[in-house]
Amino acid sequence: METNGGNTSGSECALEQPQLRTGTLPTGRVSALSAEIIAIGSELLTPERTDTNSLWLTEKLNDIGVEVMLKTIVGDDEARLEETIRDALKRSDVVITTGGLGPTEDDVTRQVSARSVGRELVYHQKLEDDLRERFKRWGREMPEINKRQAFVIDGAETLPNPNGSAVGMYLALDDKHIAVLPGPPREMQPMFENFVLAKLKAAAGNIVVRRRVLKVSGMGESSLDEAIAPIYVTFPTVQTSILFNKSEVEVHLAAKSDDAAVADAVLDGLANKIVGKLGVAVFSVQDETMEEVVGKLLTAVRKTLAVAESCTGGLIGSRLTDVPGSSAYFKEGAVVYSNEAKVRMLGVSEKTLADFGAVSAETAGEMAFGMRKRAETDYAISVTGIAGPDGGTMEKPVGTVFIGYAEAEKTRTIKMTLPGDRYLIRWRSSQAALDYLRRQLLKSSEHH
Amino acid sequence: METNGGNTSGSECALEQPQLRTGTLPTGRVSALSAEIIAIGSELLTPERTDTNSLWLTEKLNDIGVEVMLKTIVGDDEARLEETIRDALKRSDVVITTGGLGPTEDDVTRQVSARSVGRELVYHQKLEDDLRERFKRWGREMPEINKRQAFVIDGAETLPNPNGSAVGMYLALDDKHIAVLPGPPREMQPMFENFVLAKLKAAAGNIVVRRRVLKVSGMGESSLDEAIAPIYVTFPTVQTSILFNKSEVEVHLAAKSDDAAVADAVLDGLANKIVGKLGVAVFSVQDETMEEVVGKLLTAVRKTLAVAESCTGGLIGSRLTDVPGSSAYFKEGAVVYSNEAKVRMLGVSEKTLADFGAVSAETAGEMAFGMRKRAETDYAISVTGIAGPDGGTMEKPVGTVFIGYAEAEKTRTIKMTLPGDRYLIRWRSSQAALDYLRRQLLKSSEHH
Repeated sequence: METNGGNTSGSECALEQPQLRTGTLPTGRVSALSAEIIAIGSELLTPERTDTNSLWLTEKLNDIGVEVMLKTIVGDDEARLEETIRDALKRSDVVITTGGLGPTEDDVTRQVSARSVGRELVYHQKLEDDLRERFKRWGREMPEINKRQAFVIDGAETLPNPNGSAVGMYLALDDKHIAVLPGPPREMQPMFENFVLAKLKAAAGNIVVRRRVLKVSGMGESSLDEAIAPIYVTFPTVQTSILFNKSEVEVHLAAKSDDAAVADAVLDGLANKIVGKLGVAVFSVQDETMEEVVGKLLTAVRKTLAVAESCTGGLIGSRLTDVPGSSAYFKEGAVVYSNEAKVRMLGVSEKTLADFGAVSAETAGEMAFGMRKRAETDYAISVTGIAGPDGGTMEKPVGTVFIGYAEAEKTRTIKMTLPGDRYLIRWRSSQAALDYLRRQLLKSSEHH
Repeated sequence: METNGGNTSGSECALEQPQLRTGTLPTGRVSALSAEIIAIGSELLTPERTDTNSLWLTEKLNDIGVEVMLKTIVGDDEARLEETIRDALKRSDVVITTGGLGPTEDDVTRQVSARSVGRELVYHQKLEDDLRERFKRWGREMPEINKRQAFVIDGAETLPNPNGSAVGMYLALDDKHIAVLPGPPREMQPMFENFVLAKLKAAAGNIVVRRRVLKVSGMGESSLDEAIAPIYVTFPTVQTSILFNKSEVEVHLAAKSDDAAVADAVLDGLANKIVGKLGVAVFSVQDETMEEVVGKLLTAVRKTLAVAESCTGGLIGSRLTDVPGSSAYFKEGAVVYSNEAKVRMLGVSEKTLADFGAVSAETAGEMAFGMRKRAETDYAISVTGIAGPDGGTMEKPVGTVFIGYAEAEKTRTIKMTLPGDRYLIRWRSSQAALDYLRRQLLKSSEHH
């Protein structure tokens, strides 16, 4: 299968793309409802924005065994929207629309969805009264235009919206289910969870889909697939997908069953075999970030950390402190972009800088050593490298990065040559430094 | 119009959503072709991935005056894909598909697109020979399965793919244009630019769409719209959209014309009026990031900067150094998460910390003062605040942030109360600090 754009970079060698095992969930002995999601709004057809509600909805639908077969993004265009809804209802069991329920003229979802199912819109006095009441609480008069939001498809259930003025609608029509939801996520999500999910779950026959996300560092997509393909092919009821992110590869596992315990057992069996094969390269089996994993390890051993950064410019500190509670183990950081700062703040020797350069194993080592000493922490890590676009040489091309690690008894460094543009090299440097720390922490804990 | 999820947070008050002026480009006296984009691949229907190729394609299409009316994301499912392509050809002038051209069985775009236009697939010996040759250069034998990639829709133009094994196809059919492109962006993008764009441009009649993006800080969507609506309504031929990002509001302007100079003149006229109204709140008229703008200002006056960060943990340094060439003005940073680090690295007085707390104007001021002194830079900025989720009090709730600014003669601070979760508060703190610096730099330059 050819991999599409998605949110990730393409594979490095298009002729040798690994087989992505994705697609429909293996059905086994359970059947599934099919769904389509229609995102409505002309702003979603601009180069700047796209629908993201469907990702959240897809996860919720998959969890109850409902498969998303098609997604459409359509503008506030009555003819195209009507055709889209009608076609979706012909093809699929569940149709969910998001957006287009505002009070203004250009929001057409209300009347078009009614027309698509061959029903009238009916006026609900109570909805208008509620709306007036809400505006009053906001200290405002309800604009007359908002009256449009008191109209609902005849026979549809009205779905309350505590976070906005647009109510949603739900209608079961023969074997079809249609839910008409507002566009803003903070309105759409609670409405779906509180009023739609249970109905679809009942219709889907209480099928569950369980998932695991394994995160892997230090391996490419191809070599990962080569290593684990012989394992996952022996689990035909598990859908295995290998996804590439900025600097890590993820293995997504999903199993569908009418018995959650069965699905969990199958997934645990496969996950354990994969971890057994890959060892410490798997840094999380529960979809954690590298900074979360490092934070947990440090917390477990009650140790503290400081970070000295050159080419990453604060990115490692920023990632570490993105984790709530990180102040328990992260104490301080130094961003030493200039040579003077490396000398003054971290005690890197002028001779080292002169003899080996700022981008060298020697400098990385002294940075980590000096950082740990000055911050009085248990560990320190450091990064110095060439992120580009300029600054590369024959000997040290763009992407050359040295990582340092210091603990009480020793200082260690590694050299990496990372591919990508400035953004990716910086990200991958931060990931490599955190991963190096993680591997050192695991080694230390083995020895004790 | 109701705003949809997109990539941004919802508006703060759903009942008072500003009118987003989006939707179809004003056509004026020029007509436009309509287009649909179909992204193909089951992996695009998972909760983890979505089509992003369409954003890039939309921009290219809009630039030549072609409007995207509908986007579909469909799996490797023959029936649904055929229906999607047929419907798109009925409704729209241009149909572009991406993905599903790989060599394996589950890639069905080749045969389904042929069937949708009522033509056969024909075998091209030369394509197979080329492919064999490429594999040879990779030091490999061509797998027999790749022969499938030597089949092309009868009568279609073959579009070469230097970056992968899947050729594309282009077919003009009566007044319709269909382009069948591979999914990976690095294959799809050059193919579209080199072989499809010119054909569509000719069909569209050499219409151009010119754009401007104005970025605004320190104002909400509503107040911005209130301020500039009286201006943009007097430019009915310009499409004006107000988009909200994490911590800034963007004003997107687009004008369509068969004369680029005319479109540019209209846009400049409107942009100048908006800048005249909003003043320094507009930090870029060419879609730059805040860190790029600050970098340009510092470069222009040849001044240097250091940064002391507490709650942002390195994020400001990371953003500043994300800009190539930033080493010319950014010298160093200190991430002082602990009180001890604030004292030891920056010389914040213990008494200040005891009397006013780490999150206070006094501490922010001493952080900036100490940072500037130790780094020997022209300026320093600092941030200290409560990013949450814990740590808030009645007096200083989560979101309380103090920003410090130091130059030779003075130190200044401001207090902000920022909404959002930990991630947003940290991001907005970094943005507010850079913006504060920017405004101080503009003031200084006025005085000289």
